Amino acid sequence: MEKLRKIYTQAGADVLLIEQDFIRRYLTDFYSTDGYAVIDGNQCTLVVDSRYFEAAEKSLKNRGIRLIEGVYKQAQELLNGAKTVGVPYPFINLSRAESLKKDGYTLVDCMPALRSSMEIKNSEEIELIGKACGIAEDAFLALLSELKEGMTESEVAALLEYKMRCFGASGVSFDTIVAFGANGSVPHHETGCDRLKFGDAVLIDFGCKYEGYCSDCTRTFLFGDDGKHGEFKKIYGEVLAAHELVKENIAAGMTGREADEIARGYLRRSGLDKYFTHSLGHGIGLQIHEYPFLAPKSEEVLKDGMVFSDEPGVYLAGEIGIRIEDSVFLSGGKVKSFMKKTERNLLIL
Amino acid sequence: MEKLRKIYTQAGADVLLIEQDFIRRYLTDFYSTDGYAVIDGNQCTLVVDSRYFEAAEKSLKNRGIRLIEGVYKQAQELLNGAKTVGVPYPFINLSRAESLKKDGYTLVDCMPALRSSMEIKNSEEIELIGKACGIAEDAFLALLSELKEGMTESEVAALLEYKMRCFGASGVSFDTIVAFGANGSVPHHETGCDRLKFGDAVLIDFGCKYEGYCSDCTRTFLFGDDGKHGEFKKIYGEVLAAHELVKENIAAGMTGREADEIARGYLRRSGLDKYFTHSLGHGIGLQIHEYPFLAPKSEEVLKDGMVFSDEPGVYLAGEIGIRIEDSVFLSGGKVKSFMKKTERNLLIL
Repeated sequence: MEKLRKIYTQAGADVLLIEQDFIRRYLTDFYSTDGYAVIDGNQCTLVVDSRYFEAAEKSLKNRGIRLIEGVYKQAQELLNGAKTVGVPYPFINLSRAESLKKDGYTLVDCMPALRSSMEIKNSEEIELIGKACGIAEDAFLALLSELKEGMTESEVAALLEYKMRCFGASGVSFDTIVAFGANGSVPHHETGCDRLKFGDAVLIDFGCKYEGYCSDCTRTFLFGDDGKHGEFKKIYGEVLAAHELVKENIAAGMTGREADEIARGYLRRSGLDKYFTHSLGHGIGLQIHEYPFLAPKSEEVLKDGMVFSDEPGVYLAGEIGIRIEDSVFLSGGKVKSFMKKTERNLLIL
Repeated sequence: MEKLRKIYTQAGADVLLIEQDFIRRYLTDFYSTDGYAVIDGNQCTLVVDSRYFEAAEKSLKNRGIRLIEGVYKQAQELLNGAKTVGVPYPFINLSRAESLKKDGYTLVDCMPALRSSMEIKNSEEIELIGKACGIAEDAFLALLSELKEGMTESEVAALLEYKMRCFGASGVSFDTIVAFGANGSVPHHETGCDRLKFGDAVLIDFGCKYEGYCSDCTRTFLFGDDGKHGEFKKIYGEVLAAHELVKENIAAGMTGREADEIARGYLRRSGLDKYFTHSLGHGIGLQIHEYPFLAPKSEEVLKDGMVFSDEPGVYLAGEIGIRIEDSVFLSGGKVKSFMKKTERNLLIL
């Protein structure tokens, strides 16, 4: 309730109208695909239709949130008397915005208020993200022992996703990327039908959801060493060094740009920075990509309680692709990794 | 190209700017999470960043679509000289809309033009949806032989999703719903940790994606007959009759309301209509829920080439939940089902 009051006050609108599933989840702790959270100075009301009403009733018991069965019409009625309606501009669609304007409301962007609350995770959220990370790592380790020559990228992705579900994930946080051999040099390779063979480098970017919260992890390893991986090993060492340097040196108070520069600057010394074609990291929470962004132009200040990825990568088109990624968080001014079970040193199966 | 010209002309804007992944996929046949399609009177340009450039280059070869590596800035430059910019109001977010207005552009909703094109599937799209349906059915049949007492709802969902991936799906079209026993009476039950036991009714709502296109199917069956399912069987027969009646009687030219009324009217005769708490169906395509909607208030006219679900359901809170759903399409004025492999008659394992 304290959280809701703070967001409401900071937003500075008569009433907030939240339609987006992950923001509703954040405000009410109840997830449904459709629904509306309406927050005014007195209370928070959740409007869900008949599909979700029974489940919402159970979940909201004694939580101080009012529940109404309905659709947009019922949410709309709760706005009566307000002059300004706070909505998250980056997520509300223009049809809805135009309809609210037509109803005579002045819109206010409540995203800054939501963002400043959502980007700092409390201990419960840290625990849920930690759980999502632990499940992903357990699944990855279980996968390794079942990898066989001839499996397709899609089969490996499916097996990993199945294992994450079996370890307790509610689903994936994004479509798993599995890239064999040179396919890894496409940073967002579309997992396909290529078959695993001895000596292949394997890049797997994966994550799952637990109670709505996401994990994100990438591992690159060798499926056997055919003796042709001299350059690969050299570059792997550089990417790993950049990855670890970030963990050692990021501190609360730095900007996203400064964090990114730790890895980019390190890779520059060996001329590899020009192959580091994406940014260092992104925030992780109820969304897989959220604030803060750790990128060359990001002036966002990193703070305790922020959760983000540390994922430097080097991509030599058509040849080699290496990315090493942990989900991490800032605590006591320093970085702590959620990933405790999987090896970051080069793994050769 | 013909398709793009038609949409461009109908939209009536100087240039169209499309950011949404599934609409970009529709216009260019290339899928990426991020990117921009810009269509003017002369050509269609796809702007993707370095992560997707290599893959886009391969996919767009000789397709008559220009490819540019870049981010929003590069897409923005392509708007120069235009006065009106067509964007899909139900999907563009207010931040982007405000920024375009600030740049001096007048916005036009191009969704009506997109929708009238997207809601009529061509033979290639029908084939892809058929493939997605076939994969889902194959996976369901393979699942049935592996169901065992003691499995949790989540394990069953994970196994079914794994099998869909193995049969060739790129992923699920929505989180699989598995409900044991009375859980089925919550139409959108959150798949959980309840364990399967002899005599349970089992409701599974599932679907997958193939080349971006979705399938949607629900089956309700008995995991053994404990002799206590007299009422269940009676209601099952009524839901099935409603489901089949829809298939026999829907015709091109009807409204979504009239189609919905076929099932609702039938269930009314036995007083079950008050337990049919959702609408009859929704369009299916690159989105799992799209136009047309088959609902009590829908005045949309059903046309050849439309793909939608036929999914009547009856829910007695805390007791029984039965839904029978096929993905179907209209061809030659009549309904054809994509589901050819799985039984609709009550299955008792």
